[in-house]
Order: sequence, then structure tokens, then C-alpha cells
Amino acid sequence: MSTDKKITLLGLGAMGTALARTWLAAGYELTVWNRTASRAEPLAAEGAAVAASAAEAVAASPVVVACLLDDASVGEALADAGLAGKDLVNITTGTPAQARARSDWATARGARYLDGGIMAVPPMIGVPEAGAYVFYSGSEALFEERRDALAVPAAARYVGGDAGSAALHDVALLSAMMGMFGGISHAFALMRGTGVPPKETAALLVEWLTAMAGYANGMAAQLESGDYTLGVTSNLAMMVEGNATLLRTAEEQGVSAELLTPYMGLMERLLADGRGAESAAGVVDLLRKG
Amino acid sequence: MSTDKKITLLGLGAMGTALARTWLAAGYELTVWNRTASRAEPLAAEGAAVAASAAEAVAASPVVVACLLDDASVGEALADAGLAGKDLVNITTGTPAQARARSDWATARGARYLDGGIMAVPPMIGVPEAGAYVFYSGSEALFEERRDALAVPAAARYVGGDAGSAALHDVALLSAMMGMFGGISHAFALMRGTGVPPKETAALLVEWLTAMAGYANGMAAQLESGDYTLGVTSNLAMMVEGNATLLRTAEEQGVSAELLTPYMGLMERLLADGRGAESAAGVVDLLRKG
Repeated sequence: MSTDKKITLLGLGAMGTALARTWLAAGYELTVWNRTASRAEPLAAEGAAVAASAAEAVAASPVVVACLLDDASVGEALADAGLAGKDLVNITTGTPAQARARSDWATARGARYLDGGIMAVPPMIGVPEAGAYVFYSGSEALFEERRDALAVPAAARYVGGDAGSAALHDVALLSAMMGMFGGISHAFALMRGTGVPPKETAALLVEWLTAMAGYANGMAAQLESGDYTLGVTSNLAMMVEGNATLLRTAEEQGVSAELLTPYMGLMERLLADGRGAESAAGVVDLLRKG
Repeated sequence: MSTDKKITLLGLGAMGTALARTWLAAGYELTVWNRTASRAEPLAAEGAAVAASAAEAVAASPVVVACLLDDASVGEALADAGLAGKDLVNITTGTPAQARARSDWATARGARYLDGGIMAVPPMIGVPEAGAYVFYSGSEALFEERRDALAVPAAARYVGGDAGSAALHDVALLSAMMGMFGGISHAFALMRGTGVPPKETAALLVEWLTAMAGYANGMAAQLESGDYTLGVTSNLAMMVEGNATLLRTAEEQGVSAELLTPYMGLMERLLADGRGAESAAGVVDLLRKG
């Protein structure tokens, strides 16, 4: 474990600024750089050293954290920087393939590379009870040596040597959340104009979705075993029948069912394939192309 | 509160049978009827009286619970039954409009009517720690007088005098769940073939979706106030940018994004409308037709 308390941060958007404050508060010698220099001023007043260029910022510390707009911004910012012997921690949002390519690029320049996916919005950073965390993947040696520094803004979870793994985990969870948000939107649309206060509906939704999220555990057991009837209490045939009631109700309430029909369509394909006694886990296979 | 412990149950599918056992266990004098008579045999052995017809079953008790295949089955089963003075509790799955029509139909025949939507699968019935409950709507007097009996199989929640309200609440929660299940399916599809055990992915999904379900509370506050910028930490412009990463990742992993694109498309419509600083709550309005 390194005792070095020098760290460089590239990128001072809302997330970068939130991260910076936690390292300053924890007594780190923080050097910051941002393309628009004025964003560094408040942090300078709080004790951060402000570098005139990204290359200068990289030179200041053994650990360089990049929290930029996108992968292209990382390449641009670091084009002239001396990366040899540096530990580059890239928590810029990107795809798994971008993370792998950036890892190869950094490694070729003599750096160790760790990619990160932040499971939080900026107000959750540095607030342990908010439950924020960051997925990390890539160099395990880097992760272990810099773990103390990485754990300052949010909990750090290492998910493997493939540099793309953190981004994939990040995107998988965000994608599942988008599905849930779509479902929540449909529910609110159904209840709109009924006189039931949205806050009452929200309380029911939170309780219900929290209880039903455990469905993922059952689906995992089915996917691992390959037996999609494992532990099924409501099979596809029953679910497809129930879907008809959901669609008729949407029609009655004047609500478009466009957020639900794609999933229901995949269930119907499985049912037509004679898989009515199974769970809906087969949808996972249908989503995989080729 | 009635001290009457006589109850009639029409319909002995998996759900009806589960309900029946809880009333027998609680010492109720239960009369049952099922179209296919053989399904009543195990319950007869456990102490239930088996009626030869639905009309005979209705005559046996002041409270009649219908748990049949669909609304048409309720009409058929009760066509010749004497409903005058009876309390009809219909927990057959249906739409709000079907519930309202059945309420009018029953009331015209001299019965009090309560409609119910069961938020559970049969194995959760009679297991208090499973958290099952039933939404009820319609006659509040019936609900209050029969509350003890109704609360035997699962917790009873009254949601208003509109007979359709229970079905609407039921469908709203199930619809939200379908969205979440679709999102979970997409997440598993992304992680398939990466060597990460599905059970690990499931544990992350459960934790994450549970934490993010509270999004419904924020959306409710926005819908109630009409101010869709209220408390926004990740606005539409940011979300749409993030969506591009989700779509590119799906493409990289060979996964169809069909379960996510409808919701993303609605977000893009809002953004094109100049609402990038708002939350995605405007999707609720877009879903409402006309």
C-alpha cells in the first residue's frame, strides 16, 4: 500500500469537483486541471494546486485520475503528457471497448491502467451513507496499491483484470435502472388524473419494486443451471395472460403501452415456442444477437 | 365488525386453494365451489364444505369471495345465484372498467361489492413475512365489516370507493415491475458470456435497483408540483448523453437494445422540446394519449 498522498485530477465537472473536495478534505496534496480554467478557482481557494496544462498536472503526482467528458477528451488531454511510470485511473464514462483500447494505449506509454465506473450522482460523493461506489477493473496491482486514495470519495469495488469490466458492470446496472424508470413512468401515467396523490403511488412503487427486485436472484439461478423452470411460481403462460390485463388497462386509461410491449412481445415469442411452463429468463437469450 | 365466521369461496386454482387453506386454518366455516369439482377434494378432507353449484355455495354464507379465471367467469358462475343481501368480494384479475361494471351488476342484484387486486403469488399467501397484500376498493362498509376475514390470507389495503381503484393500483405496480424485469433481462444479456457468474450480477442488481427505486419519490414530487426541475441531480440532457453509452455498449456486446430504446426515444423527444434541464418526468405526460 502506497503512503503517497499526492494525486492529480483531470476534469472538474460536477463529478470531478465533488471528488476533488473529498481528497482535499482527507488531506491529499491535490493537483487539478480543467480545460476551462475558471472551474478550478474554488478548489484553488480550498487548497488544490492548479496546473496550467494537463501535462503539467500529470507530472505533479504518481496517480492521475481522469474524469472527463468522454473517451476522446481523455486522449486529447493526455496527448502530450508523460505517462511513463504513472498510475492512470480513468473514471470517464465510456464503453467496455473504449476502456480496453484506452488501457492498451496507456500501457503502451508506460503507465499502469485502471478503469472506473461511478455508481452515483455527484451529491452522493463523500457521503458514505449515500451508498455510492465505483467499479474498478484493469491493473489489480494499481488497485491494491492505491486503494486508500480510491476509497476516499466512494467505496471501491474491483471487478477483474479486463479493463472493460467496470464499464460493462456500470452500463448493465444503468440499463436495468432505465427499464425500471420506464416501468415507473408507465405506472404514474396510469394513475394520473385519478385523484390518487403521486406521493402515495410512489410509496407503493418503492415498496413493491424493492420486494420484486429479488426476481433477479431467481433468474440468475435459472441462467446458471440452464433450467428455466427452476423455482417458477408464475410461469410464462400465466404472465402472458396477465399482460393482456395490463394492456387492456393501459387502453382504458388512455396510456400508451409502448414501454411495456417490447418485453411482452419477447415473452409471447417464448410462449409460441412452447416454453409456457418456464420463467421469462429465455428473454435474456432472445436479446443476444447472432 | 361482523363476528360471522362463514365464508364462501368460488374458484380453486392455485391462488384460490392457497386462500382457502388460510381460512380453514383460522377456524372459518368455509364453503367452496370450483367448476372442475375434483379440485375441491383435498380441501374437503381439510374441513371445507363443497357445494354442488355456485348458487348453492353463494347461499351458504353472507360473504362470497370470487377468485376465478377472468371477469366473464364471474358473470357465468353467478348468473343463477341469489346475491340479494350478500357481500361479494371479487378478487378475480381484471381491468378497472371490468371491476366498475361488475360492481354495478352486483349492486343491481342487491349485493354490496368489493373488488380486490392480489399483490402476491400463491406461495406468499398465509405467510405474513412474505409481505403479500391485497388492494381493495368499492364498498367501504363491506371492507370495514369483513376486515378480519379479509386480512386472514394477506394484509388488506383499502384504496377507495371507486370499485376500479384496486385493479388500477394492481396493474400500475405490475406494469412497473414488467419494466424492471425487462431492464434486468437486458442487464443479464449484457453480462452473458463474460465469465461473471449470474448470481454476482443478480446481487449487484438487487442492491442497485433497491437503492434507485426511490427515484419514484422524486418523480412524484415533480409531478405534484408541476416543476420537473425539482431536486434534479441528473437532468435529461445528461441522461440522453448517458443513453448513447448504453446503446453503444449493447451493440459491442451483441445485445438488442429493444427493451431500452422506447424509453430513450421519449427522453429524446423531451430534449428536442428544449426540456434538457428537467428530469425525465415529462415522459409520464407523453405516455398519456389525447
